Amino acid sequence: MDNNIAQMLENQNVTNPKKLSIIAFSGDFDKLTATFTIATGAAAVGYEVNLFFTFWGLDAIKRKTGRAPLGGGFIAKIFGIMMGGLSNTPTSRFNFCGFGPWIFRKLMRKNNVATLEELVEAAKALGVNMYACEMAMHVLGLKKSDFINEVKEELGVASFLKISEGGRTIFI
Amino acid sequence: MDNNIAQMLENQNVTNPKKLSIIAFSGDFDKLTATFTIATGAAAVGYEVNLFFTFWGLDAIKRKTGRAPLGGGFIAKIFGIMMGGLSNTPTSRFNFCGFGPWIFRKLMRKNNVATLEELVEAAKALGVNMYACEMAMHVLGLKKSDFINEVKEELGVASFLKISEGGRTIFI
Amino acid sequence: MDNNIAQMLENQNVTNPKKLSIIAFSGDFDKLTATFTIATGAAAVGYEVNLFFTFWGLDAIKRKTGRAPLGGGFIAKIFGIMMGGLSNTPTSRFNFCGFGPWIFRKLMRKNNVATLEELVEAAKALGVNMYACEMAMHVLGLKKSDFINEVKEELGVASFLKISEGGRTIFI
Repeated sequence: MDNNIAQMLENQNVTNPKKLSIIAFSGDFDKLTATFTIATGAAAVGYEVNLFFTFWGLDAIKRKTGRAPLGGGFIAKIFGIMMGGLSNTPTSRFNFCGFGPWIFRKLMRKNNVATLEELVEAAKALGVNMYACEMAMHVLGLKKSDFINEVKEELGVASFLKISEGGRTIFI
Repeated sequence: MDNNIAQMLENQNVTNPKKLSIIAFSGDFDKLTATFTIATGAAAVGYEVNLFFTFWGLDAIKRKTGRAPLGGGFIAKIFGIMMGGLSNTPTSRFNFCGFGPWIFRKLMRKNNVATLEELVEAAKALGVNMYACEMAMHVLGLKKSDFINEVKEELGVASFLKISEGGRTIFI
Repeated sequence: MDNNIAQMLENQNVTNPKKLSIIAFSGDFDKLTATFTIATGAAAVGYEVNLFFTFWGLDAIKRKTGRAPLGGGFIAKIFGIMMGGLSNTPTSRFNFCGFGPWIFRKLMRKNNVATLEELVEAAKALGVNMYACEMAMHVLGLKKSDFINEVKEELGVASFLKISEGGRTIFI
């Protein structure tokens, strides 16, 4: 092969426009809805989708146990109680003490739009990859067993960057 | 052509570093200012720019009609009244009951920085592509006729991913 | 070289999957922690990392001078006092009048996770490139001398897009 060509090819890196990764930082109902709408929409048209849950976003992948306190010390327990899982997430605007998400669910149901819970189920069915952020788990006193089974593994930033390399990455 | 080369080329996907797409989710004054500053700055140096307005971000592209209620049912009407269009957007911090955006506008004017309204006009002039999110329109009871003429069409997630493919995508 | 190959290569743009740029818009403690965690994690595995601080994010790179007022007019001074630098940033949720960041710092210390201040130091040591947004500096009445020495220069959107071209860009 021509050396010039070999050199030019080497200078170009392999990219994959059909790969989408989302750093799911927010635990707000509306932003999580955006995360899962984009994730399922992308997976449905053949994208490889990677969700990396961190900080408040970890709330979305917690096992349903009501508002039971999590592991870790006293302060982590308080955060655990306040971050009550998917069904207790607030909206980022017009939350009205928890009334906002209820309005949204009602509007979504009425207009035949999938609700957040349905979107999460769809993401599982479509093979969306879900990962939990190692560091945030340490800070908030969470263990892998606190999450739904679909969460593949705990990742650090370096591993996530490796997995998402060559595609688009967005932060929500 | 050498089979090796053909194979290597096929494995690489066409990318376009001069394409920028923004998912405009936020309806906050400061974040919308960021969205339009980036969009116009990119368009001015030859980028193809695609704005995809969703949820609260739809506020930015609503036709000026004051705080008139929108179509849809009672609850959608309430959201319509609260989301009062570009001139009524709050800031994400230091909003002071609507006083925050006024301060910003004053600071921007005083320092010869384009205001949000001017930035939106510039985006139109520079040929920035604007799209509205189909799903969010359904939830909030909005029709295409509720938006400014520059909004090209309603898109679902799959269509937006297709349009933005190969470039950078950011979520604001 | 075969003309076909030359044409195909020309249609493909040089991309760099080991380049990561972050538009640091938020001044919230938790989001700044995310920004610097991702930045240092990426730099540690060989990424070129560019941080572009704008709006509230400028708070993270202000020189330590307590809550001293900044340059600019009266209104800019008020913003300067409220944006009190890295040690006074609020969390985006559960701030409890400034108590939230204290809890986080305590949890991070207890769990041997680097605190925000340590992450900023690490970013400096790892050669993360830091830039300040020209427009936001004008609006908020800030000068380059208000920032830490590691801030390379003031940039407009076009220059930032040039620097970050070919890599991933995320907005936090």
